Amino acid sequence: MRRRLDNLTKPPGSLGALEDVALRYCLITATAEPWLGKKKIFTFAGDHGVAAEGVSAYPKAVTPQMVRNMLAGGAAVSVLARHVGAEVCVVDIGVDDALEGASGLHRAKIRPGTANIAKGPAMEVSEAARAVETGIGLATQAAAAGFTMVGGGDMGIANTTSASALFAALLPCPAEETTGRGTGIDEATLVRKIAVVEQALAVNRDRLTDPLATLAALGGLEIAGICGLVLGATAQRIPAVVDGFIASAGALVACRICPTVENYLYFSHCSAENGHRRFFERFGATPLLDLGMRLGEGTGAALAMSLVEGAVRLYNEMATFESAGVSGGAT
Amino acid sequence: MRRRLDNLTKPPGSLGALEDVALRYCLITATAEPWLGKKKIFTFAGDHGVAAEGVSAYPKAVTPQMVRNMLAGGAAVSVLARHVGAEVCVVDIGVDDALEGASGLHRAKIRPGTANIAKGPAMEVSEAARAVETGIGLATQAAAAGFTMVGGGDMGIANTTSASALFAALLPCPAEETTGRGTGIDEATLVRKIAVVEQALAVNRDRLTDPLATLAALGGLEIAGICGLVLGATAQRIPAVVDGFIASAGALVACRICPTVENYLYFSHCSAENGHRRFFERFGATPLLDLGMRLGEGTGAALAMSLVEGAVRLYNEMATFESAGVSGGAT
Repeated sequence: MRRRLDNLTKPPGSLGALEDVALRYCLITATAEPWLGKKKIFTFAGDHGVAAEGVSAYPKAVTPQMVRNMLAGGAAVSVLARHVGAEVCVVDIGVDDALEGASGLHRAKIRPGTANIAKGPAMEVSEAARAVETGIGLATQAAAAGFTMVGGGDMGIANTTSASALFAALLPCPAEETTGRGTGIDEATLVRKIAVVEQALAVNRDRLTDPLATLAALGGLEIAGICGLVLGATAQRIPAVVDGFIASAGALVACRICPTVENYLYFSHCSAENGHRRFFERFGATPLLDLGMRLGEGTGAALAMSLVEGAVRLYNEMATFESAGVSGGAT
Repeated sequence: MRRRLDNLTKPPGSLGALEDVALRYCLITATAEPWLGKKKIFTFAGDHGVAAEGVSAYPKAVTPQMVRNMLAGGAAVSVLARHVGAEVCVVDIGVDDALEGASGLHRAKIRPGTANIAKGPAMEVSEAARAVETGIGLATQAAAAGFTMVGGGDMGIANTTSASALFAALLPCPAEETTGRGTGIDEATLVRKIAVVEQALAVNRDRLTDPLATLAALGGLEIAGICGLVLGATAQRIPAVVDGFIASAGALVACRICPTVENYLYFSHCSAENGHRRFFERFGATPLLDLGMRLGEGTGAALAMSLVEGAVRLYNEMATFESAGVSGGAT
């Protein structure tokens, strides 16, 4: 694979990260002749009991409203998925709303939102396991249906609080380093949010015994779904493109459950959310994009999927020095 | 325009740089209802007399060979342009080869390569002016033909030497800060290359009187073509997407000729070429991508065009808080 890259009509290494992206795609899919099929973004939606602590700039009602907006094609992920030619599957894995009549929704609700992590565990371990299995199942079905790349995104008011707690517990890292302004809270709310994350870590201390138990204690249902998607994609040998801050928390849980998962991922972008850069430093990964985005939904994953596709097409479609009659090339 | 961005169903500013990209597109095209038409990448090819100084890892014959490779669709820019749905126009503005039978080539040769800048001026001022006018003409024709975005890329063995000299003269900046390894030269060659750039600056000192004269003294014909493309796009009020190190040198000349041009550009990516980051610092611009690419041709421009398109589609196609019935939004 490296020899082919070096024989393409360009100076060795001159495509930079795109060469690593193509190489990783070959290794994930276990072939030197990689195939690009359809791509699908799963946007997992779930509510968070911790929203009651006033940690978000938006009311909880926005979660089901945004689910409907995604289904109608008006959300940012809808637009960017169309732009890059990816399908979007919106998964209700834990919205605190019946979402009556919401057509096109993938219904897989484990429970209507988590409990408040500042006061106890977010969910039972068995519930977290079922949410993870939902994600695994979706990746498995996607692979069977000819999708060769999946992306994982999120929707859930207050879910940066949950993700910050998970990063703090699993990296590990002090809460103030993993907690940021989310959708745009002010300084006073940020101070309260950090205290809430610290409280969640303290209240649940005895439950943080392994990655799944930690996910159950601090996580969100959508984070568990993304964790499962990443695990399932790895098992199917198709790449998973991780969206932003929330999705990275799900991917981190997956990597803590099964460290080899790390090699089957692409981290799409570095979010403007404080703590995401810290995650990349501690975890030792490099995201593809750094555009100051902090929206979630799968928006960064959509853009990165197009970069991955471009990199694989370069690998597949570029002429070699020999085939093009160009002087130079690896020997 | 800003109010529309803030009323889209997302937290204000959460699309990061994409919001600025969309806003700039509106301002460039002078409408709050921007239109996305076809996109075209112009890859200007020219040879460099300074190649005789042994400053490149590749022989000069590679320039016409790569032109043929691009026309055959096997070059990196060919693949990435297909990937993002852009056309490529390969412009012979100064290749030291007749390129007989090369079909699809846009023939606009000013002269068969520049003279050696280490020994005197690259070309006459009148030749530089004609090369610039060629670029202006191509942008003008593209706008008339319904293209709403143009990209400028380069092909020319030894052209990082010329670009480094231009950056040194126009930023201004010491030669060692603007000179790097190009296609991959070793340490000894780099030391010689820096000396060659310094010699070019010294030999041509009296000629560096204004931007066009500086371009004629130190530039390449493809750099002059890109400079013209950028000027022409600005005049036509369509955005120009600047590729990498070489194209930025052309854009810098254009900005020195007409400072307002700066507002009509997108810088696609930060090249791995030493000196490009320096350029962005000194010039005060932020590129969209940072993927360690250092290939030129228009490869970075192709990827960035897709990001620009995505940003404009977000602006055009996302629902507003009101239209989607989502709580929140600017008032």
